[in-house]
Amino acid sequence: MGEDDLIQRTFAPLAAGFPGALGLRDDCAVLTPPAGHDLVLTTDAVAEGVHFFAGDGAHDIAWKALAVNVSDLIAKGAQPIAYLLSLSLPDEPERGWLDAFAAGLADAQSAFSISLAGGDTDRRPGPLSVTIAAFGSVPHGRMVRRDGARAGDRLFVSGTIGDSALGLRMRLDPGLAIALGLDAARVAPLLAHYLRPQPPLALAPHILEFASAAMDISDGLIKDCGRLARVSGVAAQIEGARVPLSVSARAVISADPDLFRTVVTGGDDYQVLAAVAADRADAFRAAAQAVGVAVTDIGGVGHGTGLSVTALDGQPMVFKAGGWDHFPARRGD
Amino acid sequence: MGEDDLIQRTFAPLAAGFPGALGLRDDCAVLTPPAGHDLVLTTDAVAEGVHFFAGDGAHDIAWKALAVNVSDLIAKGAQPIAYLLSLSLPDEPERGWLDAFAAGLADAQSAFSISLAGGDTDRRPGPLSVTIAAFGSVPHGRMVRRDGARAGDRLFVSGTIGDSALGLRMRLDPGLAIALGLDAARVAPLLAHYLRPQPPLALAPHILEFASAAMDISDGLIKDCGRLARVSGVAAQIEGARVPLSVSARAVISADPDLFRTVVTGGDDYQVLAAVAADRADAFRAAAQAVGVAVTDIGGVGHGTGLSVTALDGQPMVFKAGGWDHFPARRGD
Repeated sequence: MGEDDLIQRTFAPLAAGFPGALGLRDDCAVLTPPAGHDLVLTTDAVAEGVHFFAGDGAHDIAWKALAVNVSDLIAKGAQPIAYLLSLSLPDEPERGWLDAFAAGLADAQSAFSISLAGGDTDRRPGPLSVTIAAFGSVPHGRMVRRDGARAGDRLFVSGTIGDSALGLRMRLDPGLAIALGLDAARVAPLLAHYLRPQPPLALAPHILEFASAAMDISDGLIKDCGRLARVSGVAAQIEGARVPLSVSARAVISADPDLFRTVVTGGDDYQVLAAVAADRADAFRAAAQAVGVAVTDIGGVGHGTGLSVTALDGQPMVFKAGGWDHFPARRGD
Repeated sequence: MGEDDLIQRTFAPLAAGFPGALGLRDDCAVLTPPAGHDLVLTTDAVAEGVHFFAGDGAHDIAWKALAVNVSDLIAKGAQPIAYLLSLSLPDEPERGWLDAFAAGLADAQSAFSISLAGGDTDRRPGPLSVTIAAFGSVPHGRMVRRDGARAGDRLFVSGTIGDSALGLRMRLDPGLAIALGLDAARVAPLLAHYLRPQPPLALAPHILEFASAAMDISDGLIKDCGRLARVSGVAAQIEGARVPLSVSARAVISADPDLFRTVVTGGDDYQVLAAVAADRADAFRAAAQAVGVAVTDIGGVGHGTGLSVTALDGQPMVFKAGGWDHFPARRGD
């Protein structure tokens, strides 16, 4: 199977819903933006050994690659439209692997209302990697930025936090679940969150309507909240006891309270962090609830700088490194 | 230096010309398309060991990564606007390397009239790779496609063909230049073409005006011309003796005529292949000349299917594999 055949057989069906993809028979795709709208652009890559493990299912890898991009669009209040896929494979892929990969993309496309527009496929040594550039639309001038938080805003997160990071811990240390006394039914949702994040598409229009600032949580709640506060020029406070936890995460924390630190620093959540004016907080919560998305007030924003976080017991938490950093500062930096 | 510092110090200056990049302080960029225009989207990756060599200069790597994307936009008649950069580094980069990489991007941005809009940087094992998604604009409904060639069209290429492929041959076989009796002054332009392709930006508006079909030449003239003919539903003929060659390439072919095969199959040209109605060919040539771009009529398009190519002596050439394929068919496929 040559490259052109691979594209036509495996990927062209994923582009069938987007006329501008031209059936993947061209070098480029064409996108006619909705009238009166801006395009929102983002790119994120996932790679074996960093964002997933060697041997993880192709279906899950594909899902994650698309989901981590869509979460950026949602956090900006954007409606997903299309994406470009750049796939780098170390070996000639097996047909079964490709079919599963395409099925994972198809499922994610359906879940997130987005279509393949084009791409690039090559073979090179090194880890399997999937780089996606995703495009969404917002009414002109309305993209929700990171830097709009104002003193008095409340801080909300969607969904639950930390499941993915705990799932990753359990994959890295298969004895951990047993040591914590967790059964398979408790562990499974955590593992699933790591591989199949669920950014809340239905929340996008309400982020657009209510949020003064927003971003997706990918590098850990603490680090990302610190970023939002810094670029907004405000101070932020997070009350750990209010951070929404799944049943599984609660079971983990009950068994080992120290793992709460993993919850708030671990990353890979792909939920939304949003600042909302205090007098609109109830309306935001109600609007989210109406579309089936849980949002939780975890703290607030005030004058000043910096981020303070309390633990589950209300005591201040101290962090050295605030979350995931691909290029961590060396000691002494 | 943490990831945020790296982005602000190294990459934010490259985004200064594009307000929608928001200083690279957000998750996403925002692009307001020009009124009445469509966006043209493309993505291409370059990786060490595939598109450049370990140890190649960061400046050249950056140039090539952007140039190979811009060539796609030009071939569609699009005006470049902005790009997203996804950089994957196996090791923590040295400051000097990053500075050179950013300088290479800055030079290419200036040459191709495009700005950085956003990106993603991570560390992972494996070869250094640079994935870019680039965006340009064309008047609504006017993107020049691959599939518009019609019987009677002439086939043009921009620039010269084969320099990059010959440069690659010489890098893979450092004794080749000596065996061919070429001095350094003859070899240097070939090596330079491989690392620093020069897609003809000034040609874009004339592609838009004159071409019935076009694409960039990245996987070899033969293979790419075959693709254009196939999706257009026409037959194509290329006269080898008309394929434009640089002085260096002529010297190579004089010394070893068999290397003409490398010229037409080698790829990495990043020039434009365009089909132009015969009665507009002179006007196209004149318009290209007026903006300093050489275009050469190398053949034509007729009814039927397939691609025929004559060698320099006018005899038919026979090809097994038509050009570069990341996933070549196995024998017997």
